[in-house]
Order: sequence, then structure tokens, then C-alpha cells
Amino acid sequence: MSKLKTITMEWTGSSLILVDQRYLPLEEIYVTCKTYKEVAVAIKDMVVRGAPAIGASAAFGYVLGIKEFMGTENFDEKMKNVKETLANTRPTAVNLFWALDRMEKKFKEIKNEKNLIELIEKEALNIAYEDIEANKAMGKFGGELLNDGDTVLTHCNAGALATVDYGTALGVIRGARELGKNIKVYADETRPYLQGARLTVWELYKDGFDVTLISDNMAGWVMKQGKINAVIVGADRIAANGDVANKIGTYSVAVLAKKHGIPFYVAAPLSTIDLNTPTGEEIPIEERSHKEVRYCHKSKMVPEEIKVYNPAFDVTPNELVTAIITEKGVVKSPYIENLKKLFEK
Amino acid sequence: MSKLKTITMEWTGSSLILVDQRYLPLEEIYVTCKTYKEVAVAIKDMVVRGAPAIGASAAFGYVLGIKEFMGTENFDEKMKNVKETLANTRPTAVNLFWALDRMEKKFKEIKNEKNLIELIEKEALNIAYEDIEANKAMGKFGGELLNDGDTVLTHCNAGALATVDYGTALGVIRGARELGKNIKVYADETRPYLQGARLTVWELYKDGFDVTLISDNMAGWVMKQGKINAVIVGADRIAANGDVANKIGTYSVAVLAKKHGIPFYVAAPLSTIDLNTPTGEEIPIEERSHKEVRYCHKSKMVPEEIKVYNPAFDVTPNELVTAIITEKGVVKSPYIENLKKLFEK
Repeated sequence: MSKLKTITMEWTGSSLILVDQRYLPLEEIYVTCKTYKEVAVAIKDMVVRGAPAIGASAAFGYVLGIKEFMGTENFDEKMKNVKETLANTRPTAVNLFWALDRMEKKFKEIKNEKNLIELIEKEALNIAYEDIEANKAMGKFGGELLNDGDTVLTHCNAGALATVDYGTALGVIRGARELGKNIKVYADETRPYLQGARLTVWELYKDGFDVTLISDNMAGWVMKQGKINAVIVGADRIAANGDVANKIGTYSVAVLAKKHGIPFYVAAPLSTIDLNTPTGEEIPIEERSHKEVRYCHKSKMVPEEIKVYNPAFDVTPNELVTAIITEKGVVKSPYIENLKKLFEK
Repeated sequence: MSKLKTITMEWTGSSLILVDQRYLPLEEIYVTCKTYKEVAVAIKDMVVRGAPAIGASAAFGYVLGIKEFMGTENFDEKMKNVKETLANTRPTAVNLFWALDRMEKKFKEIKNEKNLIELIEKEALNIAYEDIEANKAMGKFGGELLNDGDTVLTHCNAGALATVDYGTALGVIRGARELGKNIKVYADETRPYLQGARLTVWELYKDGFDVTLISDNMAGWVMKQGKINAVIVGADRIAANGDVANKIGTYSVAVLAKKHGIPFYVAAPLSTIDLNTPTGEEIPIEERSHKEVRYCHKSKMVPEEIKVYNPAFDVTPNELVTAIITEKGVVKSPYIENLKKLFEK
């Protein structure tokens, strides 16, 4: 039986075990999902987050659906429902839909095969292993863009924990180190969910990087003081024209980088690029629970009657993006042509 | 005996009672300072904060020093020490030094008078009452700059709680309302100390304003969506050239406002303008405890070994400032000439 085990997830063959990212770094708790429904809940509640990690988790969720319903009546119908349930968890990251489409396509191809389970499990594992490979390739391409001694600012967590392993934006930082470059990092804490403070800083610190935590609102001042040489972030969806949906606050960081003449890089696999979405305007932006803003970490800060706005993502227009780093190479403007070419290679 | 009582502070004649701003809005706790040393601790520990409120509190602290040492040996020497103790609490806001210089000057004038205490107390009360008047004048001048139906973004708390009463930036919003204009507000939560979430939102909500709380990193996206017509903030020190030191994050907001063609206003009394500081470069920026960043409100988020940067203020260069609203009128560029003129009126 094929297995997978990384910092983010473990596939045992009969369950998906996720490190519960809501409690990191102070508590290391694991959630075991034995059904597709449990995987859907884990994605929705952000036990697992990060576009590529969500995609791979959903793929394993799909496998659990197959195992649950294979040999029962209306198998096809039930698998449509499994896909829908997994897809309806979060609207912005496109990797989720990409992974589910791929799983469904494979299912349709092989549903009459005897070894259906083995083959469908292999497809999910392929998605997962290809993600790690893609990240390592991004690390190589992106690592070339950084200089020895650079200090990089990153926002949210586009690290190992946001992917199956190695990371997209943090993968580039790791890639630069593998090329022998000394890279320091400033990490935005990334309110309201604090992925930067809780995940990025923890992940980089454990991996031996010199990392400094700042509040989101310090990014501009840190740039003004000349402390930052490059910004690298991940993405939840990249439109055909190069507009980038990513964690709320990314847009502000991109504007600030432009103002200070600092390159702004986005690292994301092809599964994050959605040629069917023409521009950022068409990307649905999830609005999450107001509790996330009313609370600071576990601490209640304001009463319920206070009105709150909580968009989980924003869109950075392509003109603020210096380059998009993918597993097939580094893409620059004009994105509308150059992103399409990636898929033709 | 002369008294004063506002939302921020109460002078009873023998003590200064401060609402403990560290616990608002969920807990309403009061701190009674009976000695100048207790006032110094209250300022240092941010029981009271906001440049004008710090100035007035220090003035009352000075009165408590007079009461403690009058009639004892080395009175003058002891009052020098009182002044120094109060001045050494926080380095950035200039109102603190301005108020203490004014108290010391008055003390030197009247130290041989019989009714020294009465006169020195009157000076502190004058500082406090003049602050309220200045804020109301700013409200009138600044209120003219806003249009009926405008939505204003503010950062940190430059409200009644940051002053003796009424507020500087929030005073302008109140002033606009007094002119019959309907003004809505978005408030940045203002990490790490959360003055926006805890104080601004609470103060405006209680005062009947339509106020929405956002994380700091949402400001750019909210502007991009066209939701904001003007930004108004307070200041901790304004240099002779119009550079503005204010709560960390102000600089980022100013850059974002410029990018979106949104006017960026600073509301501050003359006591915040320091003609002896030529530019923002010379303003000392306080770096505060790293615990503020490692914790989110009362909740510990990252372990001690994580490196943190915590500048409490930043400097917004004059070219990003559309206008400075003072109690003597609205000043625009060239600030180096026009700020000086204010003091000649």
C-alpha cells in the first residue's frame, strides 16, 4: 500500500492525518480524517490551509469517498456529491478544483478497472508527490533570482505547511540556500489568522533560518529603512492576465514594494494558474467569520456588536508583480501571453 | 479646588485617575496616581497613551511632584528630577516634553508665591482645558475638509482617549458630524497594541458612529475597492518640515492613500509640532517590548526564541501628507514655511 508522510500530511492508505495548523506552533495536534466528509470539514475549518495543501488533501478525500462508496448503488452519483462536498469548502484557491477535476477525470477513466482503488490512490499520491517536485523546481528557478545576503519579506505562510512539503515562496528561499546563498527573512504576522506568526516563523526557525517576526503594519517601515531586498509570496489563484489572489494584505505589500523599488515575486505551481479566469475581477474572494477579527489569536478583543470586515484574500494586479516563479520557469510580463505558454511546454 | 473629569482622566485635586486603556473595551478599570512616580509608571506602561493625553497627564504628575516636595530641602533640584522622571517615560511624542517645559517655566515664575500649588495646578488644568479647546477647533477646521457621506479610514486611536477629550483625528470626524455631515469610519486594528480595535472602535461605537473594524493589512484592499474617501490620523511629533511621526503602520497607510488618490490628513495641536526637530530623521523612534508582538492581545502566539522587531512609531514624509489640521487652521505644503507661520499668529 502506498503511503506518504510529510510535515503537513500523512496518507496511511486508509486515512489522511493532518497536523492541525490552527494550534501551531504552541500545540502540535493531529487530526485523522477517515472519511471524505472529515476531510471537507478539515479544509473548511482550516486544519489544513494553503492552496497546494488543500488540493492534495481534497485528492485524498476523494480517495476516501471512493473507498466508502465503491460497490454501492449510484456510485457515480455519490462520487459527484463527494466532489461537490470537497469543492464547496473554500472558494478562492483554485488548486482545490484543479485537484478534484483531475481525480474525477481519472475516476471516469478507470472506474471499471478491478484495481480502481489502487489506481485512484496512485493518482492522489501523484498529485502530492508532483507538488513536492514542483516546489523543488520553483526553488531552483526562484533561488536564482535572490542574491547572497538578501533579506526577503514574506506574507502569510507559503511554506512546507501550505503545500505537501518544501513550500512555494518558502521553497524559493530554501532553493536559494541550496544554491549556497545566505538569506534572511522578515515575516508578516498576517492577521487575522496569523499564519505568518504561527506557521512561517516556526517553520523557518526550525529549518535554521534567521527570521524576524513583524506586525503587518510594519512592512512599509521596514522597507523604508532599506531592510528588504525582495518580497516573495505564494498564491491562491493566478488569473490568465497575471493578477494574483493571495492572502489578505498581499496587495498592500505589493504596493509598498513597488513604492520602494523592491521586486515582488509570486511563487506558485501551474495548478494555481487558472487560464479560465481572465482577470482578478472574476476571482471569488471568501469572506470568513467575523470572529477571526474580533479575536486576536485566542483572546477576545472586541464585543460582538462591533461591525467587522474580513475578506480572506485580496487581488494584486499584474503590474505590481515583478515575476511569477513556477515549476516550469520564471514568467514575466506580458503575463497574458507568457502564462499561456507555460501550459504549451 | 479645581477639578477636571473626562473619559480619559480625572484630576481630583490630590490625584490623577486614569482609565486603564490596556484593558478597554472589555474591562473598565481605573488607576489612581497619587504621586508623580505613579504617573510616570502609568505613562510608561501605557495605562494612558496618545500624545496629548500623555502631555496633560505629565502636567498633573508635575503638580503631584510639587505637592510632594514643596517646603522640603533642595526643592528645585527635586523638581528637576520630577521633570526628568516624567520625561523619560516615552521618547517619541513631543507633547510630553512640551507640557513639562511649560510646567517648569511656570514653576520658575511662581515658585516664591504663597499660592504656588493653586497656580501650578491652574497651569496643568489650563493645559488640559486648552487641549479640549484645540481639539474642538481642529474639529471645526477639519470637518470642513470632509464631505457628507464620506467614509474615513483611521489608524491607531487619536480619539478622546488619546487626548484630554474629543480627540484629534476623531475630533475631526466629530467636527464633521457637528457640521451636519454623515461620516462612516473604517478603523485599522493597529497591531501590536490594538489601539484601533480596542479604543477607536469602542469610542466611536459608543458615540453613535457607523464604524467597521479591519485588520491593518486590509487597508489597501479596502481602498482599492473604493470604500475610503479620506484618511485621518493623529501624530506623536511633527517635524519642522512636516514629516509626521505617528503609530507604526501610519507610513504604510499614507503610501496606500497616495497610490489610490485618497487625501491623507493629520490632525494635531501645535503642541505636537516641534520646530526644533528639522525633519523626521531626527525623531527618536521608541522600540517597545517584544512581548507585544509575541502576544496577540492576551494570547501567546509564538515562543520566546522567535526574533521580533517592534518599532512603536514610524515617520511619514511630508510629501505624503495632504494637509495638517491644527487648532489654528489647516496647513498645506510647503510645510517648512507654513508650520512656522502657525506659531507667529
